[in-house]
Amino acid sequence: MKFARLGPIGHEKPAVLDDGTYFDLSTIAPDIDGKFLSTGGPAAARAALLAGDLPKLEHAESLRIGAPISRPSAVICIGMNYAAHAAESGALPPEIPIMFLKTPNTVVGPNDTVEIPPTSTKTDWEVELGVVIGRRAAYLASPAESIRHIAGFVAANDLSERDFQMNVSGGQWSKGKCAPGFNPTGPWLVTPDEVEYQNLALRSWVNGEPRQNSSTADQIFSVDFVIWHLSQYLTLEPGDLVLTGTPEGVALSGRFPYLAAGDTCEIEIAGLGRQRQSFVPASIERHQNA
Amino acid sequence: MKFARLGPIGHEKPAVLDDGTYFDLSTIAPDIDGKFLSTGGPAAARAALLAGDLPKLEHAESLRIGAPISRPSAVICIGMNYAAHAAESGALPPEIPIMFLKTPNTVVGPNDTVEIPPTSTKTDWEVELGVVIGRRAAYLASPAESIRHIAGFVAANDLSERDFQMNVSGGQWSKGKCAPGFNPTGPWLVTPDEVEYQNLALRSWVNGEPRQNSSTADQIFSVDFVIWHLSQYLTLEPGDLVLTGTPEGVALSGRFPYLAAGDTCEIEIAGLGRQRQSFVPASIERHQNA
Repeated sequence: MKFARLGPIGHEKPAVLDDGTYFDLSTIAPDIDGKFLSTGGPAAARAALLAGDLPKLEHAESLRIGAPISRPSAVICIGMNYAAHAAESGALPPEIPIMFLKTPNTVVGPNDTVEIPPTSTKTDWEVELGVVIGRRAAYLASPAESIRHIAGFVAANDLSERDFQMNVSGGQWSKGKCAPGFNPTGPWLVTPDEVEYQNLALRSWVNGEPRQNSSTADQIFSVDFVIWHLSQYLTLEPGDLVLTGTPEGVALSGRFPYLAAGDTCEIEIAGLGRQRQSFVPASIERHQNA
Repeated sequence: MKFARLGPIGHEKPAVLDDGTYFDLSTIAPDIDGKFLSTGGPAAARAALLAGDLPKLEHAESLRIGAPISRPSAVICIGMNYAAHAAESGALPPEIPIMFLKTPNTVVGPNDTVEIPPTSTKTDWEVELGVVIGRRAAYLASPAESIRHIAGFVAANDLSERDFQMNVSGGQWSKGKCAPGFNPTGPWLVTPDEVEYQNLALRSWVNGEPRQNSSTADQIFSVDFVIWHLSQYLTLEPGDLVLTGTPEGVALSGRFPYLAAGDTCEIEIAGLGRQRQSFVPASIERHQNA
């Protein structure tokens, strides 16, 4: 099943996408959030859909697509989880998952315009498989337990400012990972029954030219391993988003220019949908007066 | 003015502490959160208190003290912000603030029992001045702007597992900063008019023996500088918690043993109150079945 949230920023309506048609889920749930995901919401939505109880969402094609989950309590990221990306970043493949965090307010819709930070010279793209937590996970006994805690999967662009991340950070990457709008997510949250999650094609393009082209089969640490591993160090909450790393083909490699105002970035993960962001200069005054 | 949240975990009532008496704030606000802090809540609470409109909170002395703010959208931390602590950690003083994140679900009450993670051998204390954001902050024009975005100050213990943080992390500190209960916060949120925040004594004790004993006057980067600086890299949201670094005197220095089950840790910041945590072994089964 595919969940989505459609409508203006801050006023998205929860929806189910079935056979090309969006159905309005707001009749049975206020939002697609941790509470919905951890209290049987997906099963109730499926039952309502099958029973024909969900009204069609009118004019869905004209609505903005939001992130398919409401703001998470945490966005946990895995770094260097593809060997070729570690190599292009000048690093050896890690022997244990490297974890860092993005602030949850970076999560935006998949096609929302993204602002280049005013002092940025190295804004970079990163297509990533995102895992959405459906059930609290702490101290899981084994990687085999992980799937019981997964609500579904999303496409995500882990946008990164490399100068902020590595040159003015003292080595702590989060400073380059949290600029406003730096986590386009969606379009859909897809339930695990529809996702062969360790065998998904991931691709990205800039201005229509191919950049990344890989598969989650190339991950060093599998989704199940990552969720189990993280649960030894923190409690994953329902609705949390775990980004599982990006494959090779980013600007950090030196093979491509960084993103600039006027550029368009697209990412796609097989079965999880496609994103398209236009990049513009940051409006400092708008932020200061918000 | 001093705000607090009293009651069982997840059911805390907002309160004002005035001259040793707790007054019930739930008559005018459901919680002390970003919405309360950014929409005139503190001024309304002050007016209600002065008008005698707030009922006394009955049996306050028997209630658990929760964190004085509800779960933030983000907990942003500054590393190595006291020169002597950088030195005891084997590092040079940073030339620019080092930022990392804790997950917001680490925030607990100041006297809550803390679990030592099952595989921990290096659980460490860190007394820190915490800044609570009262108004969204992005791309602030100067450090002089920061105070307009600050709702108040809290004491916080930035508990850290040094092996998780530095040896199994690939260098990204967050892995050692996010274990359940690793951010005791409070007892009070104190408004800026009562806090000379760049001249506060910070102290910590383990089993009654002194550990840290310093002053926020020794910070490398001031509170105003830190808030302005962070706002260039991310948007600080109302209710967010910024931890401004810890002074020397932690176990990482090699001068003291790490925390173990059975130990008690206390921290105190002048005017912001005192915390006391007992440390116990983690109950893995309780977490797995939660």
